[in-house]
Amino acid sequence: MSTASTRVPQQERSRATQARLLEATVDCLVEHGWSGTTTTVVAARAGVSRGAQLHHYPTKAALVTAAVAHLAERRADELRTEAEALPAGPQRLDRVIDLLGVAFTGPLFVAALELWVAARTDRELREALVPLEATVGREMHRLTVALLGVDERRPGVREAVQATLDLLRGLGVANLLNDDSARRTALLTTWKRQLAALLTP
Amino acid sequence: MSTASTRVPQQERSRATQARLLEATVDCLVEHGWSGTTTTVVAARAGVSRGAQLHHYPTKAALVTAAVAHLAERRADELRTEAEALPAGPQRLDRVIDLLGVAFTGPLFVAALELWVAARTDRELREALVPLEATVGREMHRLTVALLGVDERRPGVREAVQATLDLLRGLGVANLLNDDSARRTALLTTWKRQLAALLTP
Repeated sequence: MSTASTRVPQQERSRATQARLLEATVDCLVEHGWSGTTTTVVAARAGVSRGAQLHHYPTKAALVTAAVAHLAERRADELRTEAEALPAGPQRLDRVIDLLGVAFTGPLFVAALELWVAARTDRELREALVPLEATVGREMHRLTVALLGVDERRPGVREAVQATLDLLRGLGVANLLNDDSARRTALLTTWKRQLAALLTP
Repeated sequence: MSTASTRVPQQERSRATQARLLEATVDCLVEHGWSGTTTTVVAARAGVSRGAQLHHYPTKAALVTAAVAHLAERRADELRTEAEALPAGPQRLDRVIDLLGVAFTGPLFVAALELWVAARTDRELREALVPLEATVGREMHRLTVALLGVDERRPGVREAVQATLDLLRGLGVANLLNDDSARRTALLTTWKRQLAALLTP
């Protein structure tokens, strides 16, 4: 085989190995939390050798931030795809808030929260996570604006989107130890009406 | 000395020892996080013997939940006292939200969040914390209603108070790794106007 034809499968194998490691990392964070997520446990779960793992992600901080970045991109893609199926018109806002409510109580939110809290007292993780948190936050804001189909240049729209995301983050935390879905659904029903009023020119 | 007169100072010493342990626990949670908070570190920080500590709080779960309960009561008392100095009239709502904004970014919030996240994957802590979380949540809601001086029997008031507390929780998390105060102040300025409209009969 030529060099070119062997390089492609090798790159593909590398990408597949990375993806397996990143998915296993998020699963571990959700199941065992930050302190229970060791690089050894992740490698075993992913079925990847320690050597290959260290080659791709030399530290735990590198591994977990890559995992959250990877899952954030995947979730954003999924949200965009799900949003394509949504109706236009006034019902759209309600369905977008429902989708976001699910996202802010799902595995990505839980894994990211594990990292935010751990990074508070772990300097290496903090330095890796702060730039990622800023990017993911900006992307989430942009995505919400796009899904809602609103124009951020209009006064009040930016603030209304921000408040929605902060409210959803608070609801995500309220759901950590209990199934808070009944209260959350009622609260978001009220919020949808308020948000619609705030976003209507 | 009679039995009665020795018993009082002994009870007082016990209470003082407990208070020192609980304050040291919260300080440790804020400074070192859940995994860095060991009962040994707390005892040393409080200047209390391991024997005395184990006598009052036999497990780490017992110690940390007592610490958060203790601090929650103290913060509620402080909020009530601070609120007594507030003006009546429309400015009152703004000042109450300011006080709550400070509370949801302070040491109690940070220590409680460390426990909520750790309890997700620690069964012993979870069993100790879930009833406490419910009580503290209810008390916080009642306190907010009282500070705002609103009547919860009016339609929409209960939901508006809940949304305020969920929003503040989300803003507290957004402040974990960065000083988010400029964005928070702007967002809460908008929220105060919305909340005033929601609470006005």
